[in-house]
Amino acid sequence: MFLLLACIISFLALITPAAHGGKVLVFPHVGSHWVNMRVLVEELHLRGHTVTVIRAADSWYISETSSHYSTVTVNVSGGGNEEFFHHFVSEVIKIKRSKGSAWARFALDMELKDKFFELHKQICEVVVYMFENRELMKSFQEAKYDVVLTDPANGGGVLLAHYLGLPLVFNARWTVHGEAHFAIAPSPLSYVPLPPSELTDQMTFLERVKNMAFYTMRMHLYKQIVGPHYSALTNRYFGSDVGYFSLFQAADLWLMRVDFVFEFPRPTMPNVVYMGGFQCKPAKPLPQNLEEFVQSSGEHGVIIMSLGTLIAELPHDLADEIAAAFAKLPQKVIWRYKGSRPSTLGHNTLLVDWMPQNDLLGHPNIKLFISHGGTNGIYEAIYHGVPIVGIPFVFDQADNLSRLRAKGVANVLDISDLDKKIFLEAIQDVLNEPSYTINMQRLASLHKDQPMKPLDRALFSIEFVMRHRGAAHLRTESYRMPWYSYYSVDVLLFLLAVALLSALFFIGLIWFCLRLCFKRKQKSD
Amino acid sequence: MFLLLACIISFLALITPAAHGGKVLVFPHVGSHWVNMRVLVEELHLRGHTVTVIRAADSWYISETSSHYSTVTVNVSGGGNEEFFHHFVSEVIKIKRSKGSAWARFALDMELKDKFFELHKQICEVVVYMFENRELMKSFQEAKYDVVLTDPANGGGVLLAHYLGLPLVFNARWTVHGEAHFAIAPSPLSYVPLPPSELTDQMTFLERVKNMAFYTMRMHLYKQIVGPHYSALTNRYFGSDVGYFSLFQAADLWLMRVDFVFEFPRPTMPNVVYMGGFQCKPAKPLPQNLEEFVQSSGEHGVIIMSLGTLIAELPHDLADEIAAAFAKLPQKVIWRYKGSRPSTLGHNTLLVDWMPQNDLLGHPNIKLFISHGGTNGIYEAIYHGVPIVGIPFVFDQADNLSRLRAKGVANVLDISDLDKKIFLEAIQDVLNEPSYTINMQRLASLHKDQPMKPLDRALFSIEFVMRHRGAAHLRTESYRMPWYSYYSVDVLLFLLAVALLSALFFIGLIWFCLRLCFKRKQKSD
Repeated sequence: MFLLLACIISFLALITPAAHGGKVLVFPHVGSHWVNMRVLVEELHLRGHTVTVIRAADSWYISETSSHYSTVTVNVSGGGNEEFFHHFVSEVIKIKRSKGSAWARFALDMELKDKFFELHKQICEVVVYMFENRELMKSFQEAKYDVVLTDPANGGGVLLAHYLGLPLVFNARWTVHGEAHFAIAPSPLSYVPLPPSELTDQMTFLERVKNMAFYTMRMHLYKQIVGPHYSALTNRYFGSDVGYFSLFQAADLWLMRVDFVFEFPRPTMPNVVYMGGFQCKPAKPLPQNLEEFVQSSGEHGVIIMSLGTLIAELPHDLADEIAAAFAKLPQKVIWRYKGSRPSTLGHNTLLVDWMPQNDLLGHPNIKLFISHGGTNGIYEAIYHGVPIVGIPFVFDQADNLSRLRAKGVANVLDISDLDKKIFLEAIQDVLNEPSYTINMQRLASLHKDQPMKPLDRALFSIEFVMRHRGAAHLRTESYRMPWYSYYSVDVLLFLLAVALLSALFFIGLIWFCLRLCFKRKQKSD
Repeated sequence: MFLLLACIISFLALITPAAHGGKVLVFPHVGSHWVNMRVLVEELHLRGHTVTVIRAADSWYISETSSHYSTVTVNVSGGGNEEFFHHFVSEVIKIKRSKGSAWARFALDMELKDKFFELHKQICEVVVYMFENRELMKSFQEAKYDVVLTDPANGGGVLLAHYLGLPLVFNARWTVHGEAHFAIAPSPLSYVPLPPSELTDQMTFLERVKNMAFYTMRMHLYKQIVGPHYSALTNRYFGSDVGYFSLFQAADLWLMRVDFVFEFPRPTMPNVVYMGGFQCKPAKPLPQNLEEFVQSSGEHGVIIMSLGTLIAELPHDLADEIAAAFAKLPQKVIWRYKGSRPSTLGHNTLLVDWMPQNDLLGHPNIKLFISHGGTNGIYEAIYHGVPIVGIPFVFDQADNLSRLRAKGVANVLDISDLDKKIFLEAIQDVLNEPSYTINMQRLASLHKDQPMKPLDRALFSIEFVMRHRGAAHLRTESYRMPWYSYYSVDVLLFLLAVALLSALFFIGLIWFCLRLCFKRKQKSD
C-alpha cells in the first residue's frame, strides 16, 4: 500500500511539476481575446507565479486591479474600440437585412480596415511609450521575468520579448497575418482552408481557387495594414537586419486555441500545443429560479440562445421574428437579450441579461444552443455535446460555424433572410434529426478523451519554457532562409543547369565523334 | 484526506483509462524492430488487452509461446535473415578497414538491396498465405479485433488491416519508403535532412543538393525494390483503383520512435504521437560483482562499450587497438564483446557477454558510453545523460550519431582509420571536455520533462484508436489528391491563364480603341 501511494505521489509529482514561483509578463490583446488570456493568467497565479499584465490607460476590458495579477498601465490610448465594433456590427446587420448594396458593405469593410490600421498604430504607440521610458524598461529588466506571454493578434508582445531577451509564448488563434498556423506550419492551400473562407479540407477545384484568392488577399492586407507599423519599429529599435516577421516566427511556443474536433486535420509543428476548449469546465448547479424554469420544460427540454457580448441588441423586426418562432415551440427558451421586449414573445421564453452559459449547456435538459458562432460558446457546446443553430454576423463567426456544419452538428442560417419560418424550420430540423445530437456527442467524447486537460497541457508548456528558458529544440529556424532556399528553388535550378550542361556536353561529344568519323571517311574515300 | 485520495483516484482514472480488454492484432517487423514492438505488446497485455502476434515459421526473434501474447504462425519463410546481416556487417568492416575499393562496397550494397528485395517478397508471401487461407481469415474476422498494430518497415500489416477493415496503428521510424515522416508530413528538403544522409537542419547549399539527391535516390529505390511487391498484392486483392501507398498513408495513428531531443524540429501531423525513449526506465541496482567492479573505479569512473547484437565480434587487429587504448586509461571499462580475448587487454577492462546496459548507464559512476549508434542505446544514454563516443558501422547508425554530434553530445569515429591513438584521443576528448556531459544532461532534462511518459502516451493513443474505432479527425485525406492538385499546380495554371487572357483582352481593347481614334483622326483629317 505504501509503495502504491509512493508511486502515485511520484507520478503526480512527475505530471504536475511544482509551481516554482516564476514571473510572467503578459502583453494581451483587447476585447474578447482578453477573456481567453485571463483564464491562463488566473491559472498561472493559482500555480504560484507572479503575473504582470500590460494595459493601455483606456482599456475597457482589463481592469487595473486584480487579485490575480498586477498591472503596468501605459499612458497611451490603445484599449480597443468597443464603440466602433458595436457600431460596425449593427451596420452589418442593417445592410444585410435591407439587402443593402455591395458598395455599402465594401465601404463598411474599408472603415473596418481603417480601424484595424488605427488599432495597430495604437499598439505601436504603446510599444514606443514603453521603449522610450527608460525607467519602465529598467524595471522590466530588473524584475527578471521568465517569459513573455502574448496574444499575437497584435505585435506588441513580440517586440517587447525581443527587447528584453526573454522567451516568448503565444496564446494564439489569429495573428497580425491571419490564422496562426499559416505563419509557421506548412499549409498546402489544396486542403488547408484559410479562415474566414468558410471552406473545408475537401474542396472542389473552384473552391481551391477561392482559397488561393483569400490567401493572396490576406497577404496583401497584412503588407498594407499591419506590416509597415511593426517593420518601422523593428527598424528603429533593432536595426534594419531584424525583420518583424522573423521575430514573430521565432516564438518558442504556440498555445493554439483550437482542437481537432473543430479544426480540420492539417500539418503542424512541434512547438504548437493545442489547447482548444481550455476554458471548458463541468457544469455547476444552476441558480434555483433557472433550475425551476429548466425543470418546468418537462420532456421537451430547453433551448438557449446567446449572440455574445457584441450583439446585445437586434433590430425590432428581427427580434420579433425570432420571438414569434420561439413562441411556436413546445420547448422552453432562455434567451440572453438586452433589447426591448419583443411584442411577439411567448410565455415559454425567458429573456435574461446574462446567463451561466456553461452550466446551462451542461444541464441534461438542454436540447439546443442558438449561437452567433464565437469560439468560446462553440467549445462549450462541443464540451457538453449540445448541437447548434448558428446565426453568424461578423468576423470569424461564419467560418467557425461552417466548420461545425461540415461536421454535421450545426444548421447555419443567414441573417439576411432570417424570418420566423426559416428560423423555426432550422430549430425543428436540429431537434428532430437525431444525427445532429449524435454527431455532437461524438465530438464531445473525442474532445474529452485526452490524457491531459487542455488547460493543464497549456500550463505545463508555459512552465516548460520557463524552466528551460525557451524551447529551441522544438522550433525550426527555417524562417531565416530566403524563400528560394526554403522552397529549394536554387537547388532545383542548379540541378537543372547541371543536367542541361551534361546533355549539351554529350551532344557536343557525339557531334564531335560523328564529325571525326565523317572526316576520316572523306579522307579514306 | 479522503477528498485528496478521491481526487487522486479520479485523476488517475482520467489519465489512465481503464483497460477495457480490447483485442490487438500485431503484424511485426523482424530483427531489432521486434525489440521495440515487444515493449508495446507486453504493456498492452499488462493493461488487460489480448494480443495476437503474427510470425513466420522461421522467425528467429519472435518466440512462438509467450505469457504476454498468443501467436499465429504462418508456415512460410519470412523470419528475417540474421545470418546475412552478420555476414554483411563483417564484410563492411573488412572493406572499410582494408580501404577496399568503392566497387567492392557498391557490390556489397547491391547484395543488400537484393536481400531487402527478397525480404519484402517473403513478407508478401506471408500475406498471400494468410489471404488465401480462408479458415485463418475467417478466424481473424470472428475474433473481432479492435486494431492492427504494425511496424511499417514492411507492408504486411497495412494490407491485413485493410482486408479486415480494422483501424491501423504504426509503431514507426522507418517505412518501406524511408524515414516515416516523409510519408505523411510535409518535409521541405531545405531544412529537413533525409536519413541516412548525416545532414542536419542547417545545411549549406551543397548539402541541400546532397539532401535532394538522397531523396531522389530513396524514391527510386522504393519504386524499384518495394513498390512492385505490394502494388501487385493490392491489385490482386483490392482492385486496381486501390494503391498501396494510399492505404499506407491512411493509417490512423503513427507512434513515432523519436523525440525532439534527437530529431531535428520539423513539420509533423496531428496523428503522429512521439514516443522516442518509450523503452527507457530508471536504473535498477547492478548485480553484486558488477557493482563492486564499478565501485572499484573510484573517482575516475567507468566507461561502457557495446556495439549491439549485430556486431558481436571485431577483426583481431581492431579489437587489439581498442583494448590497448582502454589499457591506457585510469578509468575502468566494461566491454560487451563476444570475440576472442584481445592480446592487449588491460587489467582495467572487463569483457562481458551481456550487460544490463540501462542499469549501468543509470549508475552515477558511468562517465562515457561507447556505442555503434543503435537507437535503443542512444535513447538510454540520453535518458541517463551519458555522453557518447560513436563507432557507426551500417544502416542508420552513422546518421543517428551525426545527430548527436550536431547537438554536441558525441564524438563520432570512422571505423576505416580507427587505431589506438585516435580512439584514445576521442575518449579523452569526451571525458575532459565538460560540454559533452553538460549538453547530454541538458538533453536528458528536456527529454524527461514531459507531462506524460512516452510509453503511457503511446498506450493511451492505441487505446484511443480502439475506443473510437480509428482517429479520422486527426488524419488528412490529402493523400487522395493527385499531385498537381495537392501542390495547387492546376489552380496556379488556371489563375495564370485568367491573368494572361485578361491582359490579352485589355491589350486588345486598348488596341481597338487606339485604332478607332486613329481612324476618326484620319477621317477628320
